[in-house]
Amino acid sequence: MSAHQDFLAYVDKNADKFIQRLADAVKIKSISGDAGCRQETIDMGHWLQKQLDALGVTTVLRDLGQCPIQGQLLDLPPAILGRLGEDPKKKTVLIYGHYDVQPALKSDGWDTDPFELVRKDDQLFGRGSTDDKGPIMGWLNVLEAHRSQGLELPVNLRFCFEGMEESGSEGLDELIEKEVAEGEFFKGVDCVCISDNYWLNTRTPALTYGLRGIAYFGIHVSGPGQDLHSGLFGRMVHEPMTDLVKLMSKLVDHNGNILVPGIEDMVPLPDEHELKLYTKMDYSLADVAEAAGASIALSDQKETVLMGRMRNPSLSLHGIQGAFSEPGCKTVIPSKVSGKFSLRLVPPQTPELVIPLVTGYIQSEFAKLNSKNKMTVEYLHGGKPWVSDVNHWNFEAAKRAIETIWKKTPDYTREGGSIPVTLTFAEKLGVNVLLLPMGRADDGAHSTNEKLDISNFIEGTKVLGTYLYEVSALSGVA
Amino acid sequence: MSAHQDFLAYVDKNADKFIQRLADAVKIKSISGDAGCRQETIDMGHWLQKQLDALGVTTVLRDLGQCPIQGQLLDLPPAILGRLGEDPKKKTVLIYGHYDVQPALKSDGWDTDPFELVRKDDQLFGRGSTDDKGPIMGWLNVLEAHRSQGLELPVNLRFCFEGMEESGSEGLDELIEKEVAEGEFFKGVDCVCISDNYWLNTRTPALTYGLRGIAYFGIHVSGPGQDLHSGLFGRMVHEPMTDLVKLMSKLVDHNGNILVPGIEDMVPLPDEHELKLYTKMDYSLADVAEAAGASIALSDQKETVLMGRMRNPSLSLHGIQGAFSEPGCKTVIPSKVSGKFSLRLVPPQTPELVIPLVTGYIQSEFAKLNSKNKMTVEYLHGGKPWVSDVNHWNFEAAKRAIETIWKKTPDYTREGGSIPVTLTFAEKLGVNVLLLPMGRADDGAHSTNEKLDISNFIEGTKVLGTYLYEVSALSGVA
Repeated sequence: MSAHQDFLAYVDKNADKFIQRLADAVKIKSISGDAGCRQETIDMGHWLQKQLDALGVTTVLRDLGQCPIQGQLLDLPPAILGRLGEDPKKKTVLIYGHYDVQPALKSDGWDTDPFELVRKDDQLFGRGSTDDKGPIMGWLNVLEAHRSQGLELPVNLRFCFEGMEESGSEGLDELIEKEVAEGEFFKGVDCVCISDNYWLNTRTPALTYGLRGIAYFGIHVSGPGQDLHSGLFGRMVHEPMTDLVKLMSKLVDHNGNILVPGIEDMVPLPDEHELKLYTKMDYSLADVAEAAGASIALSDQKETVLMGRMRNPSLSLHGIQGAFSEPGCKTVIPSKVSGKFSLRLVPPQTPELVIPLVTGYIQSEFAKLNSKNKMTVEYLHGGKPWVSDVNHWNFEAAKRAIETIWKKTPDYTREGGSIPVTLTFAEKLGVNVLLLPMGRADDGAHSTNEKLDISNFIEGTKVLGTYLYEVSALSGVA
Repeated sequence: MSAHQDFLAYVDKNADKFIQRLADAVKIKSISGDAGCRQETIDMGHWLQKQLDALGVTTVLRDLGQCPIQGQLLDLPPAILGRLGEDPKKKTVLIYGHYDVQPALKSDGWDTDPFELVRKDDQLFGRGSTDDKGPIMGWLNVLEAHRSQGLELPVNLRFCFEGMEESGSEGLDELIEKEVAEGEFFKGVDCVCISDNYWLNTRTPALTYGLRGIAYFGIHVSGPGQDLHSGLFGRMVHEPMTDLVKLMSKLVDHNGNILVPGIEDMVPLPDEHELKLYTKMDYSLADVAEAAGASIALSDQKETVLMGRMRNPSLSLHGIQGAFSEPGCKTVIPSKVSGKFSLRLVPPQTPELVIPLVTGYIQSEFAKLNSKNKMTVEYLHGGKPWVSDVNHWNFEAAKRAIETIWKKTPDYTREGGSIPVTLTFAEKLGVNVLLLPMGRADDGAHSTNEKLDISNFIEGTKVLGTYLYEVSALSGVA
């Protein structure tokens, strides 16, 4: 069943309106990791519920309780559950998205206010434009195109939108588990579709069947009762920064190899068949350079670089809290510093398996320093990796939709990022989960000048709608 | 000649008024290292000039030109030169101080607003309270006590107050050189007195005859065109933070030994005589613990700890600019990071001697990383170390003043901090320079909750005044 032509025509005609709705969404500073933005994050949930209600979706807000953040105990942003269509003859597709975003300050290096959607040429710049407000708006566009023209949707839809994805999806696993056991919203779900990742490059749409997990850690080193003057105290006392930098330097080598013993060994080497997959992908070192903005690939072998992202673990040092971080010269010995780093995990790694390795290793390295400072390792959040079955009709429907709209065969990718809820849906619902990315590799999710190409937003909306028609068409196959 | 009793009595009676003037000074955010505070730093210079004028000092503001700061070319805060007294029978004492302060944010961990002077018990908390607005106000107190009572000062006074000490004393060396060659303000100066350091402990006043120099560096590593998502790019690209942390970890070991080859070797070992000096000092590990707020001394030997501060170089890692430094978890690969560190130098080390060693070493360590990122080492500012003659009448006068007011013999110390102008005065004027500290070891200069004990402010004012009387009394000796 090809998508209804009136649906496709409506999307083309209403692009400006759709962009305006995305702008309205970007304006709400729903930074889940910032206590000062918690109310706006909750407001964003209410805004999204109103949009869904207006498009005929039956919604409830689910209270996820409270959670400590930056020394305060604050209400969590609510999860939004939604239901549209109860036709037992139709497949039921569960849509997931998140309405929270990463932190962003203009001073981080943004060309424009991160919370004003700015159109430049054929691109839309703003925090959340691609991660993940753009894709959520894509679904709203699909709903509006059908409702406003009186078109029947080809499937039943269920929605699960959360506001804590960027901060460990606090409370969501429990909600899903409870909803599966006792609730009404997830009953009869046949498959799940998540739009929260990116094409492998800037040319070829992708379908994603694997995700790395994550384990995010803090190393806290403290010593002096307050910050000290480096002239007065330099070479008198153990300096927390000296210890912390030593420890952080022991985590990963300059080639990206993880130095924590036992982490690399967990992962089996690729066989011939798997190696060929990477050789076949529409990808080159020029794509890394374009997406990263510089020729800084760790290897000159395309396959090695792809495996680095898709099937190997990684360790990134994100920064240090508590040290001097401003412009200028401050001659301070900071009293308390926290190093932040995270590992990306691949099967069979899990946070549970790596936490003791990481913690034990850092403790043993700290012991070698004979420092009088105090050091603790804190596991901050994480999620397991995930791999799906690409031969399922859910993937086939998405492939056909992409071929129809983009006239291209998608890359089948495993993604370097983490969307822990993917695994929860797969495990708790027992159905196939599909990752259907809307944005491109150079969108700059989590970065400065995050953007979404207008073509990805508009054609991407058509892909989402067409996918629903293809799911319906493939029903007999299932 | 003992100090005039009316002077001492006036100081006791007017303590509250003096504290209020210090509060007025603290309120002005004269952070020389912050472009956004440049106007307030200049305002502070004007405020101080007014105070001096009102106390009978003839002043001029000397324009020091402009200087780039944080990407802007801004006017430098003016130097204030002052003159009071022209009696050829009297000694002429040049007073130096600085009216700028270190950066301070309440969020750094201050208990109160850093720019409101807060009195708690017998202490005054606020940025600049001890470094260096308190001592400058001490001199104003001395002037007021004499002028308001019609008392004649026992010496001629000259003043040199600058607003860039915390940012490399930009422009001051040239001003002093020019003033010595052509000007009127430094003619006939017999000695210099600087109050810009601290007692060795919290019990015993000190006189300081040596200072470490400083060389402040930035290591800039850049790679990606923008910040990257660690899920998407982790283990695909060379990460600037990985390189920077490696380089920073190679600079100093956990015992405070500097790892840059050639730096430690420059400094001769202490002989028996020098070792005894440290053994004699009124100092214990408990003092380090009290001042630092924790038992984190690098050695259990008092002498080793004292030598670490007074006669050995040190290297402190201050922080990283451009990396994630906020609370929470951000999964970012920062695109440009700058590591800040500084060395404290002792004779015969100078910035000129260490810059090539530091730069060459970091470049060679970076070459070992085979990174595709870009790295540069920047020398940001510095000053030479200094040692003075403690047998000069200038030191003797200060010793007598301290014995009169505090009833204690001062510790003779070398200071770990850097006041580069000390050396300039010594070299350009060719006269003895004395460091006469007002505050205590636990004042927290450059740190959070910087304070000055009220007794140090009030008795310290008396010491400054009494020192002038003792200089006058010792005139014949010179």
